[in-house]
Amino acid sequence: MPFPNNESPMSAAADFLPLAHRLADAARAAILPYYRSRLAIDDKADASPVTLADRGAEQAMRALLAAELPGHGIIGEEFGRDREDAEWVWVLDPVDGTKSFIVGRPTFCTLIGLLHHGKPVLGIIDQPVLQERWVGVADQTSTLNGQAVHSSAITALGEARLGSTGTQYLPGQAGERFAALQAQCRFTVWGGDAYLYALLATGGYDLVVESGLKLHDFAALVPVVQGAGGLMTDWQGNALHKDSDGSVLVAATAELHAAAKALLA
Amino acid sequence: MPFPNNESPMSAAADFLPLAHRLADAARAAILPYYRSRLAIDDKADASPVTLADRGAEQAMRALLAAELPGHGIIGEEFGRDREDAEWVWVLDPVDGTKSFIVGRPTFCTLIGLLHHGKPVLGIIDQPVLQERWVGVADQTSTLNGQAVHSSAITALGEARLGSTGTQYLPGQAGERFAALQAQCRFTVWGGDAYLYALLATGGYDLVVESGLKLHDFAALVPVVQGAGGLMTDWQGNALHKDSDGSVLVAATAELHAAAKALLA
Repeated sequence: MPFPNNESPMSAAADFLPLAHRLADAARAAILPYYRSRLAIDDKADASPVTLADRGAEQAMRALLAAELPGHGIIGEEFGRDREDAEWVWVLDPVDGTKSFIVGRPTFCTLIGLLHHGKPVLGIIDQPVLQERWVGVADQTSTLNGQAVHSSAITALGEARLGSTGTQYLPGQAGERFAALQAQCRFTVWGGDAYLYALLATGGYDLVVESGLKLHDFAALVPVVQGAGGLMTDWQGNALHKDSDGSVLVAATAELHAAAKALLA
Repeated sequence: MPFPNNESPMSAAADFLPLAHRLADAARAAILPYYRSRLAIDDKADASPVTLADRGAEQAMRALLAAELPGHGIIGEEFGRDREDAEWVWVLDPVDGTKSFIVGRPTFCTLIGLLHHGKPVLGIIDQPVLQERWVGVADQTSTLNGQAVHSSAITALGEARLGSTGTQYLPGQAGERFAALQAQCRFTVWGGDAYLYALLATGGYDLVVESGLKLHDFAALVPVVQGAGGLMTDWQGNALHKDSDGSVLVAATAELHAAAKALLA
């Protein structure tokens, strides 16, 4: 056995990293042939490029997990839930940012998360076109293609670079609260889905604020953000878990997190 | 002389293409060392990465133009206007999408436009990180890295993929009109600056609608969009020129253009 029975789950999470890389490699190979293919063709047909990329990537990852870790659970965006009460559960979003994929923008990502007793302990954010892979493991420094990354040191809202995917994902009161925060920040760069969180972990954005996220949208992001020094909670400041409400507040520093939370909560 | 006196200005524009490529190469070399450098450091200091990239790229392009085409005019975002009433005027935006550059998103672009008697006749949209270069020349098919590109064949608003950089660039009544259009479209993917127009020329987006653009923001885009089959005007349907009002409506097809114009004008 690679680790004794009484070792912490944290070191065990790291033991699954080689397989997590193989999952990301398999997803890349499944997705890239469809990138910008038939862009001018209506993708509402059954076999749209995004559908083929999504399904192909998740099937490839599920096949690897079934062969290597048959006792683990899987929650995937495309093919549902298997053994979701298992001690270890993989959370797969083969193409996060499908609309970006559809318009040919290389900021969609493959997300691979691993939950231990419902808590995210390992995450990969992979951008196949750019060949950028962010990796986060609980209690370790996050990396981009093997190099350590760190969130910024910005502490004042007035200096903060704010990101969010789009106004359509901030309906009603959520939009009003977001606007109040936005008015205090240095500037907003819209668009990006998971890529926003990867860039926050790399010191680009200082705040990312969204709502309506599902488990497969955020599970992989938590270890990457936290391992880069950032804070990632819901809008009330609660840790994210399997049954979170979908609101997400990510900040480069504790000061920014507190200031943003006061405007959002 | 490479072309006789009575040759049309259109073929003359193409004769400047090799130099335009050299300008884009020089800009790439000047920009890339600053990409994601010192991301975590406040860029308000005088020598921020974006400032160094912007200025270095424009200086490199201006030096080439001064050496090769001293009689041509230059309008640059960073260093102002020289001989702006010349028959041929180059319009340079070394880093379009500076906020994307600042947060480390590889969708900023270098824009190189050439005006003949005030009309855009040649354009380059260059993404240094991805090494993607869109080229448009009046009356020629636009290309991405040498391969022909075409806008989509979508004609119905309900199927249209709409893009715009951000709500902050659609203030007041412009925002209300945009929202009316947005409600009729299939979906909106926010963010992107010039990269939106490059993707429309490649069949990704079907509509791009913005306001507040300056000459250096749009001059290079016109030949790329038109050479891919798209239509690019202001919100009233007027051709873009040196003194346009900054509203921009770009559509993949004439049907989409008419439908969007009816909602915006």
